[in-house]
Amino acid sequence: MAVDTRLDETIRLALAEDVGPGDVTTTAVVPAEAQAEAQAVAKQDLIVAGAEVAARVFTLMDASLQVAQKIPDGSPATRGDVILEVAGPARSILIAERVALNFLMHLSGVATLTRALVDAVAGTAARIIDTRKTTPGLRALEKRAVRSGGGHNHRFALYDGVLIKDNHIRAAGSISTAVGAVKAEVHHLLKIEVEVTDLDELDEALAAGVDAVLLDNMSLADMAEAVKRYGDRVVLEASGNVTLATVRSIAETGVDLISVGALTHSAPAADISLRFLD
Amino acid sequence: MAVDTRLDETIRLALAEDVGPGDVTTTAVVPAEAQAEAQAVAKQDLIVAGAEVAARVFTLMDASLQVAQKIPDGSPATRGDVILEVAGPARSILIAERVALNFLMHLSGVATLTRALVDAVAGTAARIIDTRKTTPGLRALEKRAVRSGGGHNHRFALYDGVLIKDNHIRAAGSISTAVGAVKAEVHHLLKIEVEVTDLDELDEALAAGVDAVLLDNMSLADMAEAVKRYGDRVVLEASGNVTLATVRSIAETGVDLISVGALTHSAPAADISLRFLD
Amino acid sequence: MAVDTRLDETIRLALAEDVGPGDVTTTAVVPAEAQAEAQAVAKQDLIVAGAEVAARVFTLMDASLQVAQKIPDGSPATRGDVILEVAGPARSILIAERVALNFLMHLSGVATLTRALVDAVAGTAARIIDTRKTTPGLRALEKRAVRSGGGHNHRFALYDGVLIKDNHIRAAGSISTAVGAVKAEVHHLLKIEVEVTDLDELDEALAAGVDAVLLDNMSLADMAEAVKRYGDRVVLEASGNVTLATVRSIAETGVDLISVGALTHSAPAADISLRFLD
Amino acid sequence: MAVDTRLDETIRLALAEDVGPGDVTTTAVVPAEAQAEAQAVAKQDLIVAGAEVAARVFTLMDASLQVAQKIPDGSPATRGDVILEVAGPARSILIAERVALNFLMHLSGVATLTRALVDAVAGTAARIIDTRKTTPGLRALEKRAVRSGGGHNHRFALYDGVLIKDNHIRAAGSISTAVGAVKAEVHHLLKIEVEVTDLDELDEALAAGVDAVLLDNMSLADMAEAVKRYGDRVVLEASGNVTLATVRSIAETGVDLISVGALTHSAPAADISLRFLD
Amino acid sequence: MAVDTRLDETIRLALAEDVGPGDVTTTAVVPAEAQAEAQAVAKQDLIVAGAEVAARVFTLMDASLQVAQKIPDGSPATRGDVILEVAGPARSILIAERVALNFLMHLSGVATLTRALVDAVAGTAARIIDTRKTTPGLRALEKRAVRSGGGHNHRFALYDGVLIKDNHIRAAGSISTAVGAVKAEVHHLLKIEVEVTDLDELDEALAAGVDAVLLDNMSLADMAEAVKRYGDRVVLEASGNVTLATVRSIAETGVDLISVGALTHSAPAADISLRFLD
Amino acid sequence: MAVDTRLDETIRLALAEDVGPGDVTTTAVVPAEAQAEAQAVAKQDLIVAGAEVAARVFTLMDASLQVAQKIPDGSPATRGDVILEVAGPARSILIAERVALNFLMHLSGVATLTRALVDAVAGTAARIIDTRKTTPGLRALEKRAVRSGGGHNHRFALYDGVLIKDNHIRAAGSISTAVGAVKAEVHHLLKIEVEVTDLDELDEALAAGVDAVLLDNMSLADMAEAVKRYGDRVVLEASGNVTLATVRSIAETGVDLISVGALTHSAPAADISLRFLD
Repeated sequence: MAVDTRLDETIRLALAEDVGPGDVTTTAVVPAEAQAEAQAVAKQDLIVAGAEVAARVFTLMDASLQVAQKIPDGSPATRGDVILEVAGPARSILIAERVALNFLMHLSGVATLTRALVDAVAGTAARIIDTRKTTPGLRALEKRAVRSGGGHNHRFALYDGVLIKDNHIRAAGSISTAVGAVKAEVHHLLKIEVEVTDLDELDEALAAGVDAVLLDNMSLADMAEAVKRYGDRVVLEASGNVTLATVRSIAETGVDLISVGALTHSAPAADISLRFLD
Repeated sequence: MAVDTRLDETIRLALAEDVGPGDVTTTAVVPAEAQAEAQAVAKQDLIVAGAEVAARVFTLMDASLQVAQKIPDGSPATRGDVILEVAGPARSILIAERVALNFLMHLSGVATLTRALVDAVAGTAARIIDTRKTTPGLRALEKRAVRSGGGHNHRFALYDGVLIKDNHIRAAGSISTAVGAVKAEVHHLLKIEVEVTDLDELDEALAAGVDAVLLDNMSLADMAEAVKRYGDRVVLEASGNVTLATVRSIAETGVDLISVGALTHSAPAADISLRFLD
Repeated sequence: MAVDTRLDETIRLALAEDVGPGDVTTTAVVPAEAQAEAQAVAKQDLIVAGAEVAARVFTLMDASLQVAQKIPDGSPATRGDVILEVAGPARSILIAERVALNFLMHLSGVATLTRALVDAVAGTAARIIDTRKTTPGLRALEKRAVRSGGGHNHRFALYDGVLIKDNHIRAAGSISTAVGAVKAEVHHLLKIEVEVTDLDELDEALAAGVDAVLLDNMSLADMAEAVKRYGDRVVLEASGNVTLATVRSIAETGVDLISVGALTHSAPAADISLRFLD
Repeated sequence: MAVDTRLDETIRLALAEDVGPGDVTTTAVVPAEAQAEAQAVAKQDLIVAGAEVAARVFTLMDASLQVAQKIPDGSPATRGDVILEVAGPARSILIAERVALNFLMHLSGVATLTRALVDAVAGTAARIIDTRKTTPGLRALEKRAVRSGGGHNHRFALYDGVLIKDNHIRAAGSISTAVGAVKAEVHHLLKIEVEVTDLDELDEALAAGVDAVLLDNMSLADMAEAVKRYGDRVVLEASGNVTLATVRSIAETGVDLISVGALTHSAPAADISLRFLD
Repeated sequence: MAVDTRLDETIRLALAEDVGPGDVTTTAVVPAEAQAEAQAVAKQDLIVAGAEVAARVFTLMDASLQVAQKIPDGSPATRGDVILEVAGPARSILIAERVALNFLMHLSGVATLTRALVDAVAGTAARIIDTRKTTPGLRALEKRAVRSGGGHNHRFALYDGVLIKDNHIRAAGSISTAVGAVKAEVHHLLKIEVEVTDLDELDEALAAGVDAVLLDNMSLADMAEAVKRYGDRVVLEASGNVTLATVRSIAETGVDLISVGALTHSAPAADISLRFLD
Repeated sequence: MAVDTRLDETIRLALAEDVGPGDVTTTAVVPAEAQAEAQAVAKQDLIVAGAEVAARVFTLMDASLQVAQKIPDGSPATRGDVILEVAGPARSILIAERVALNFLMHLSGVATLTRALVDAVAGTAARIIDTRKTTPGLRALEKRAVRSGGGHNHRFALYDGVLIKDNHIRAAGSISTAVGAVKAEVHHLLKIEVEVTDLDELDEALAAGVDAVLLDNMSLADMAEAVKRYGDRVVLEASGNVTLATVRSIAETGVDLISVGALTHSAPAADISLRFLD
């Protein structure tokens, strides 16, 4: 498999952060030759994500560790299920444990929240997508966790998609000026999305020839009207105040995409612990 | 002020992640010479943390940006309050906006949750402390945010404190063997803490001569008994199932410290947005 | 201006490569306190590109150097014109000279070749664009130089645009299968381009619903036919055997884009030297 | 074989530049388990250089790829010859393809141009050598490619050879002062070369006791006179206006070395493509 | 064994420093296919330290080298003893030789000096410990070498132990103020040591509730008095003017620790050379 | 002045090593706003070296610190002399103090030992030079310190000078074969030195046409004979068993250079401390 040097670098930084010049407890207490086996066990129902990352934490710490992933990323685990097994030098397992779990718990938390929202809109045409409101340094992993949860991704970053927001429009003078400027500048494989807050702006955006529209904090009624007017011509993305309680109503307006910052910035960690076997 | 090269590196990675080869929208739409002013505004009541980090994001992106922090880290902001002001080239503000907010929202979230728990134990002797269950790459910032929220820190990492857990004890054979091994190895400025799960283990730990004890998932009654037996001799730390609902009862047992992983791994982001001024 | 840390890193690597532990000649011969002024002079007619980079080389070497760019990137220089002036410690100028010129000569070479092709298609609707056939490590700078020469850019890299090539199609089984797979996976702000080699494949691509088509090594007649069939529906990009001799004929077929690898992989360096003033 | 960490770092930067967060096309279209075989094929007659680098690109991308170099660096390839074969996961080959070819085409271009000049001076005593006019970041590879083409290298950088140029002389006051300063400073294993533009300066340089002289843009007659006067005492290097048309005449003056910046800054890329096998 | 990425990075920097773009001698003289065997031989009696580091230098240079450590770190070697054997490509051994020996000679020098001091206090209760007066970049290795010599370590750095020095006290106003400030701030697993220069300060430190005291440059009589007063309550560390001639007298005062900066900043290199076998 | 990014990187690594996540003592005890002045004072007679490095440590830690170097590198300091003054935030001075002194004490130690040997050969023609037996990571600084002590440098590394040692000769078969191989390979600005152990090898080396000879562990009589035979034709370097006691006798044989590994691998640190002013 292709080595992901970005992932390895992210893990190395996390290990350096936690281990630094050494684990004073483990080095003193655990003999160098001691062997151990341990299991990452779900302490709640959850959707697994980041198990490959956690596995890589162990093997980057010590290439002699044997790691077996028992539940693939994207699958559900029930409380008590074993997600990952690791065996080898006890010191290495103990030293890497916290970093491996920190990745696994956070990313499974993201996937678990995503799945809840995806399930809530089941049967509608709407996709749940993420945003750029990610944890600094962890965007690629969090976006992968969103997919593990059944969600889809928005653009990755500022460089792989055009999203014209209100402040861009203010700087340009109008929606059509902004759209025109983008068309003159960006390469021919990027589509253009514009953020609008009401139906007038929506009409103006469509007139300017955009490919997608972000309906920001609009009422359900206005969203439905937007779908009615342009649902067959452009991609419509709903955004703002999306919760488990509101998401289905939003989906039922007929929008194509519902973007949710909370997927990555507010998902509680999934409860997972490492159990050592005798 | 001393330059924190670790912080700068963390920010540079976050900017590289989001900006990469360039912000295609802003570059196309906003003229290079356009100037702007913007304010980071609280959209909910919160405790500010990470505002210095957010300010540094802007100045690392563009040293000509003028940033003024209006509310210091550790202080409360009420919905509508301005936390930070930034002025200068519009392009630079727009490009750095998301990264600055991602730090600010996450860290203020940590501080806000911490403050809630700290307030809940007001009047008791217990301190709310964090754990090593932090977001990979952000530990130093999150631990600072915990302090902004009125909490205190546990050890920073594996290298600056001894915490003997159940798996260490298993590897060593007994609590006393483990403690003895540590005393023979570590330098003379580190104290020793041991994790125990019942009162028998607690007695054994005290007999081995430890400086602190982590009471893991013990009942309120047992915690109170632990305090009664050893509260004047060692530091007692409670851990496990700590929530806003339970934290005061735990504090009232008389323990010295209550450690809460959720402070850093499950705090929802505080809602903050950047408002551009006309 | 926003600091481009990528550019700085590229320059630092280049300086490290050339200067290493020190310039043994300059250190021995030139007194530390000696001051000098020098001018980067065009030794041929050329289009300036990379002058900002060369200026940054000097200031990264020595922040006390004063650099003035006399001709902006994208403008023509006639043999004998002064492009850049630098003044300050003689040692610093001498040590940075070669690296500054290596960037300036290469990038101006790219811009100069680009301008020749752009001029050759003047009056047609075709844009001259670059490819991913760039010099390893210098892509961002070369793509900027292409724009300085009046050309436009193709996608920057593998991550900001979809281009389905013959080997992708072979792996997928058919054009329509490949296009369908992309539509299910990529985010909604990316368009889809497919490479075709004849008119049958072109028809199949259009039927699959692509946004752009790369006409690879097709005859002028076939390109004209492609324009006739689909010129108003999708972006048509011509590629293969593009030279100064052929480019106008290709443009006159009506294609939208003509991509030229030679812009970045085979442009001869523009002749520029650094002249010291007495 | 000793691992060249500099090479690996150069390749990693190039892969990061092109792949970034991922190849959106290949990931969507090509199944993870698909296998493929491909061949790097010469589309023109050329001298191979950089094939080891291209091979390393593939194995750094994916250690499971099998790469076989069919023609060694420094050997000629005729149009249609297979230079390199690679087999393994189709995704990995497709993702690494462009970077591997970018190195191979550029470096083979350098070797091919070098060979043409070397052949042009066959039978004379002159060696074709490179300069410090290299592509930023690629000097070591380009200098290796020059050797693959039958050329020789000049000093690598500012730190491993003394070359006193006109501006050094100006700063020092005279050739003899400059040479004296160098002799007092540099370690005893470095020779000293001085750049001169006429026979008077040449005489002065020899009187100062240099080991080599760079004859800059001198006439054929003057070069011949220089050889006659000092050819048996010092190394004579010719420089300036060296082309395929002029190089033999220069060589026939009897100079030892002919340095050519164009070898590395203006060699057109050799045409090579990757052909997938069914 | 767990990979120590810090060690690898330290070694890579050292190799880059010495090898840079290549070993011009070895590359020219030694055929690529030549094989060799060599032994690191003690040229004096010494305590081995850093042999694992030297071994890693060879394998990082060339993973095909076979390295066997004949004497473990911490054991004595007599003049003529073989410490390490290496076999494989001759070029790789020759290129890595100097860096491997530079580590081995320095670290064995540290261990050898440490052992001399440790032996000098044999039979007393005093431990010989190091300080933060280490060689920049090599602290972890030097502290490991001190342990190889039978010494113990002081705190690793500024972050894993509290040591209040005279200038801290001056800034705080008094010993008790300083100690109080620390107790309010640092986490509960760090002890507190204060530096004192006479018995009055010692009394004040004890009254403030410190865990350890550094007796700086105090007379033997005063050290003995300090032990008499507080030897059973806190850790007493002696510092200042510690030499082979004085160390035993200091130990016999009854202090617990004797810290010696010279262990790491002034230990002469142990004489070790690499002998090639025929 | 030109920024030495290598130096800055070396210092940053040293600061990271000592400061890590923070100085727990200083942060707790010293108020952020406290100002201080301090002086680096010689505690013994010494030759100053590394004072510029120490100054840079302070300014890299905190750009607001004012640093004044009172005695230039290369000048003597008498016990009690002030070498460096620093003023500004007390925290920053205290945190950077140890790293600054570690550089200054080590490098002044190197210069002081060098000066002793240089003085011992005063009046002879011999130069004292260093070797590649340097501290990993500090070569450039140590070689500069040798010059501060009045010594000269040997080649910097494996890449900027040819030194054929016994193992190279063994691999090549003979001295003349080795020298011939080098002449065919290396660029024309490098001289060639060969290591010999007796007069026969010396004769063979001269016959092969070398530029310099290293006389390894030869007797004074043989060194004198070597000078007699070839002193006017090549550079003669003596090496082996050079001490303060032997160096003058060696110099009086008439050799040009005396290389001493101990300059950099065994120089005791010079005693320097930082004194805070009231």
